[in-house]
Amino acid sequence: MSGNTFGTLFSVTNFGESHGPAIGCVIDGCPPGMPLNEAMIQHDLDRRRPGTSRHVTQRQEPDAVEILSGVYEGKTTGTPIALLIRNTDQRSKDYANIVESFRPGHADYTYWHKYGIRDPRGGGRSSARLTAPTVAAGAVAKQWLKAQFGTEFRACMTQLGELDIPFEDWMHVPNNPFFAPVADVSAFEDYMDALRKAGDSCGARIRVQASGVPVGLGQPLYNKLDADIAYAMMGLNAVKGVEIGVGFASVAQRGTVHGDSLTPAGFASNHAGGVLGGISTGQDLEVSIAIKPTSSILSPRDSIDIHGQPTEVITKGRHDPCVGIRAAPIAEALLALVVMDHALLHRAQCGDVQQGVPPIRSSLL
Amino acid sequence: MSGNTFGTLFSVTNFGESHGPAIGCVIDGCPPGMPLNEAMIQHDLDRRRPGTSRHVTQRQEPDAVEILSGVYEGKTTGTPIALLIRNTDQRSKDYANIVESFRPGHADYTYWHKYGIRDPRGGGRSSARLTAPTVAAGAVAKQWLKAQFGTEFRACMTQLGELDIPFEDWMHVPNNPFFAPVADVSAFEDYMDALRKAGDSCGARIRVQASGVPVGLGQPLYNKLDADIAYAMMGLNAVKGVEIGVGFASVAQRGTVHGDSLTPAGFASNHAGGVLGGISTGQDLEVSIAIKPTSSILSPRDSIDIHGQPTEVITKGRHDPCVGIRAAPIAEALLALVVMDHALLHRAQCGDVQQGVPPIRSSLL
Amino acid sequence: MSGNTFGTLFSVTNFGESHGPAIGCVIDGCPPGMPLNEAMIQHDLDRRRPGTSRHVTQRQEPDAVEILSGVYEGKTTGTPIALLIRNTDQRSKDYANIVESFRPGHADYTYWHKYGIRDPRGGGRSSARLTAPTVAAGAVAKQWLKAQFGTEFRACMTQLGELDIPFEDWMHVPNNPFFAPVADVSAFEDYMDALRKAGDSCGARIRVQASGVPVGLGQPLYNKLDADIAYAMMGLNAVKGVEIGVGFASVAQRGTVHGDSLTPAGFASNHAGGVLGGISTGQDLEVSIAIKPTSSILSPRDSIDIHGQPTEVITKGRHDPCVGIRAAPIAEALLALVVMDHALLHRAQCGDVQQGVPPIRSSLL
Amino acid sequence: MSGNTFGTLFSVTNFGESHGPAIGCVIDGCPPGMPLNEAMIQHDLDRRRPGTSRHVTQRQEPDAVEILSGVYEGKTTGTPIALLIRNTDQRSKDYANIVESFRPGHADYTYWHKYGIRDPRGGGRSSARLTAPTVAAGAVAKQWLKAQFGTEFRACMTQLGELDIPFEDWMHVPNNPFFAPVADVSAFEDYMDALRKAGDSCGARIRVQASGVPVGLGQPLYNKLDADIAYAMMGLNAVKGVEIGVGFASVAQRGTVHGDSLTPAGFASNHAGGVLGGISTGQDLEVSIAIKPTSSILSPRDSIDIHGQPTEVITKGRHDPCVGIRAAPIAEALLALVVMDHALLHRAQCGDVQQGVPPIRSSLL
Repeated sequence: MSGNTFGTLFSVTNFGESHGPAIGCVIDGCPPGMPLNEAMIQHDLDRRRPGTSRHVTQRQEPDAVEILSGVYEGKTTGTPIALLIRNTDQRSKDYANIVESFRPGHADYTYWHKYGIRDPRGGGRSSARLTAPTVAAGAVAKQWLKAQFGTEFRACMTQLGELDIPFEDWMHVPNNPFFAPVADVSAFEDYMDALRKAGDSCGARIRVQASGVPVGLGQPLYNKLDADIAYAMMGLNAVKGVEIGVGFASVAQRGTVHGDSLTPAGFASNHAGGVLGGISTGQDLEVSIAIKPTSSILSPRDSIDIHGQPTEVITKGRHDPCVGIRAAPIAEALLALVVMDHALLHRAQCGDVQQGVPPIRSSLL
Repeated sequence: MSGNTFGTLFSVTNFGESHGPAIGCVIDGCPPGMPLNEAMIQHDLDRRRPGTSRHVTQRQEPDAVEILSGVYEGKTTGTPIALLIRNTDQRSKDYANIVESFRPGHADYTYWHKYGIRDPRGGGRSSARLTAPTVAAGAVAKQWLKAQFGTEFRACMTQLGELDIPFEDWMHVPNNPFFAPVADVSAFEDYMDALRKAGDSCGARIRVQASGVPVGLGQPLYNKLDADIAYAMMGLNAVKGVEIGVGFASVAQRGTVHGDSLTPAGFASNHAGGVLGGISTGQDLEVSIAIKPTSSILSPRDSIDIHGQPTEVITKGRHDPCVGIRAAPIAEALLALVVMDHALLHRAQCGDVQQGVPPIRSSLL
Repeated sequence: MSGNTFGTLFSVTNFGESHGPAIGCVIDGCPPGMPLNEAMIQHDLDRRRPGTSRHVTQRQEPDAVEILSGVYEGKTTGTPIALLIRNTDQRSKDYANIVESFRPGHADYTYWHKYGIRDPRGGGRSSARLTAPTVAAGAVAKQWLKAQFGTEFRACMTQLGELDIPFEDWMHVPNNPFFAPVADVSAFEDYMDALRKAGDSCGARIRVQASGVPVGLGQPLYNKLDADIAYAMMGLNAVKGVEIGVGFASVAQRGTVHGDSLTPAGFASNHAGGVLGGISTGQDLEVSIAIKPTSSILSPRDSIDIHGQPTEVITKGRHDPCVGIRAAPIAEALLALVVMDHALLHRAQCGDVQQGVPPIRSSLL
Repeated sequence: MSGNTFGTLFSVTNFGESHGPAIGCVIDGCPPGMPLNEAMIQHDLDRRRPGTSRHVTQRQEPDAVEILSGVYEGKTTGTPIALLIRNTDQRSKDYANIVESFRPGHADYTYWHKYGIRDPRGGGRSSARLTAPTVAAGAVAKQWLKAQFGTEFRACMTQLGELDIPFEDWMHVPNNPFFAPVADVSAFEDYMDALRKAGDSCGARIRVQASGVPVGLGQPLYNKLDADIAYAMMGLNAVKGVEIGVGFASVAQRGTVHGDSLTPAGFASNHAGGVLGGISTGQDLEVSIAIKPTSSILSPRDSIDIHGQPTEVITKGRHDPCVGIRAAPIAEALLALVVMDHALLHRAQCGDVQQGVPPIRSSLL
């Protein structure tokens, strides 16, 4: 309600600031009896971790997660799972020059006006560092969905700044620092090197997919599955656009083309992106998001200070020149959290198996 | 929680089916003492009403709203405002042929698999008719926001099928059936006539704007203002994409270009669309949505029936060949509901005026 | 959130005022496929209805309920069930003399100070008349719980003013206007006649019971089953105390006495009232509530008016001299709503049947 | 929703187990700009701490709280305040003998049947140890309410087992280990010594009071202030009854007696306990709760094991022979959390000061 809890039945309450003592989250609503340990969560945290290539922030954070509660003898107990990640590589003095001025395109300005106080160190609460607990919680959701339905989540980059990235194969994604589905990423390496040299930043477009999603998840009117996906994705730092299925391209499609035909063997296409009327069809969920360029850049920008006086802002600190590069595992986690919440809600309403009502199932027909 | 309530502090619980006895909503959380009567709500309902031109469904519904509670001697009392709209022009027999088969691109399929039962008459609960109570509730929110902050909402069409609609002036919007911001809509008339003759449908792109929005609305992490806007818009029937500010175009922008500079006189541009870090900047909120082509069309489509057997579906009934045409007032209402909820939430957290914390205010500096 | 919705997964949004055009509620989250029609709801409404004996208010209201949505061909569809009850026997002029003064012990005073405006006719929103939609919603919950688990709800009066009512048998309850579990109620008739003649009112104590409740319902920390029961009961008009099991008598019990022993055949006693650690044991839920005397009485009382000036208040209108007399069906409904909500929540968390987790079940061992 | 979060606008998410690595909570919704440090919280934690007299559990826990987030330079920032308390004095082997059997009157049984798994060490999640984070969160709420309205909270014991405790003066409460409002507690010392020697336990009755509560807090129908108080109190471990104002004694009162008269100088009495129609009157909130005897006792009890076989249970470990002794600060904290949540909700609905609507205020007239 006050904006730091995600989900209702599988709810994740996030806390922490970029340069405070720790960040973390409390997961409430995880079903009991599921195997869980730190290593299962750490894997996704490592995929998001900073400092893994020269194209991302050089902050060195192991982001080691500690499970504080909710697990007994290696299994979830149905009680809250608290996850703690200590901050270890803060360099707060980097932010001395922006304590009293606002970075163009940054949340500095709005936090100040909302609360009358803000923690300027590393962006405080608005830092993308706060996506780490989201990734950790997503790993827990993924684990349950995989075991129940065989659901799998993956994401890749489809555009880097002006450069389109053609889709070659999902297999390439883990083999390059861009999460790009292509074999050769040298063009992206060069692009990023030039950008960094120029003290500038760029945006990215990310494709997120879930397969093995049961049919029937989602509510018809306001808690539609696609609405909740849009909510989750637009809430990710720097996202400015969200599409489901063919997205904006649907505007120019005719009804005779857009509507996915059904055959006894399944749907003939997936323009809908796996959702009809706000409810999952059992097809792959297909989501695309636009991430804006980072606002914390070395190039000088015109701005004002907290007294309304003109000033020039240069952001030192250690920042990602393209926050989209590390966004793939975060987007996966958010999609997993949405699907998880809806899976539990559907189970509440319609049961596992109930007479006259089809059960949750991952196959279409 | 179960998907039929929008908002938390200004919450709207929607009920009804397209061909049931009535539709309506209960608004809970409207501040007391605000003037309200049916006429204030009817105005927006009439803008959304069917049957007003040959380009929309020919269903004739006055959509007359009755206030059942929450208003005493012309003022809100702070208690729930129940709004009732009786359905009057149902023709349920039109749907006989789709009772046992699924329209491609329609919620028929997912409702059936979720619930094991569905009301097929006119789409039942999945009908766009259920946006009427949303529009009514939005009218109440608009009224309060206008009085408190001078906030105004407006929307227009920016693309119809393949046709781009250049922005000329907001003044044209009420003067044509397309909510188009242009003086001459003859090309759109011809386009729609041809489409209708072909038994086909098309999509549309809508721009929604709020001006006079106080700075500071929105939560930093999960209940971001833009996230809630994305949620609201993607939840509108047939929407497949949402953008805030420059949206997907931000991907190819550099940080030096995208981040809106600040000057003592205000922001120098509005690429952000009025939101930074999930919190309103005080600039205009700028939102753009993609609406897919209607799935209920006269052209025959391949599909299956509820037994999984192949069949051909032709949808008679009375349908909008482009649901986007009537979407402008609905999108305005949804944006108003989001802003309203956040205005109350902000007031809860930070008060009207609190020492050391700037009040809600509509002007920037 | 704003106080007019009960429950989260089976949520009931109540609207209306005593002397407005209508009262009602929207039930969201009712599982699909359940048989439902007006008659099934009307039965409990009739048990609560005014005007059925000389000991309750003489307002004549049929309280006929209309189902506006959520039911198709006699079965619930999983979409919101809107229930409407038109007000038909208002006599608003009875309240002219209390428009500007406050009845001692009545919500007049607090409404006025909270909202700065109130509907004085018949108590407006604070009227016990608003329990009718709660009873209607409870009837829907009862129906589902009965079918799923065989759960049954009943309530009786155990004290009327100073008079203790010994428990004889549940079979007597429907046979007298007091819901008293005794064969001979002549003493209560006399007591009430004298009270009415004196222009005074009295309180009552009600016992509420649910049998056939599955083991395992309730959350361990904050949404405990007994906490939610206390919330529901204390929220009923005029209730000033709630007990679970032996209640206040537990204070003087020793641990060796209070803790209910377990045997292979079940619990040996039920001091706990069916709840341990906030979770149902499978035993009967046993609840007891204290209802204060009605504040609307004919005897003159010292008070003040809205300007703070002293005045004397006499309440005419038609009022129950003991609101506890009609409280039994309302208390049952509230208990049913709590159990229903927890049954759905439990199903979300633990499933109908899940490996290693016992299913919801109505028998103990 | 899943039972580990208290409150909606000032929401407290609790985590941890008695013998896990740590317990704690995340407070979301605390207004910005309020001075806060660990010492302000530690004071109330120390009042609740075990091991402070021979009449409570001898577990030695400093319960030192660490603020992990939400505070910057000694002031709250409006972002989540995470509080961490490490467990330091676990003796898990004490619980070996109850791993497979159920203590009569304890949550062992229900946890096992709900989740199919439980952490038996020290009661796991059902331990009264989990009230420590509640007390910590309550300290934050108290601080804000004190500063805003001058609201104060206090609690005392009014009954210990069979012994009534007459009210002498609040000044005695901090001077004895029983929170008793009397000068001489020797009778209680003797009573407890005998009880401990007998290997038995007893209950207690606690009175909780809030003064300086603004008029107008609470919602009229379902989120009544008294309903939320009952919810909070009944959710406290071992509570079996809750009264507001005169409570169960109201049943035998006449309306002419019970309804508190109003005079230009204020209310003439406070039978209502500070709430009318679910909304605060500005008088003191008066609450009374019944706490049952501890179920973990040394005396042998008949029970069954997880296979349904009869067994005898003796609970070693270190337990409070009367959990009511340490309940006073917890009950205060819960009342503070309820009032805090309602204060923010009222501010959302009615504003700090709004034309035609009286502001929140602590004095009556």
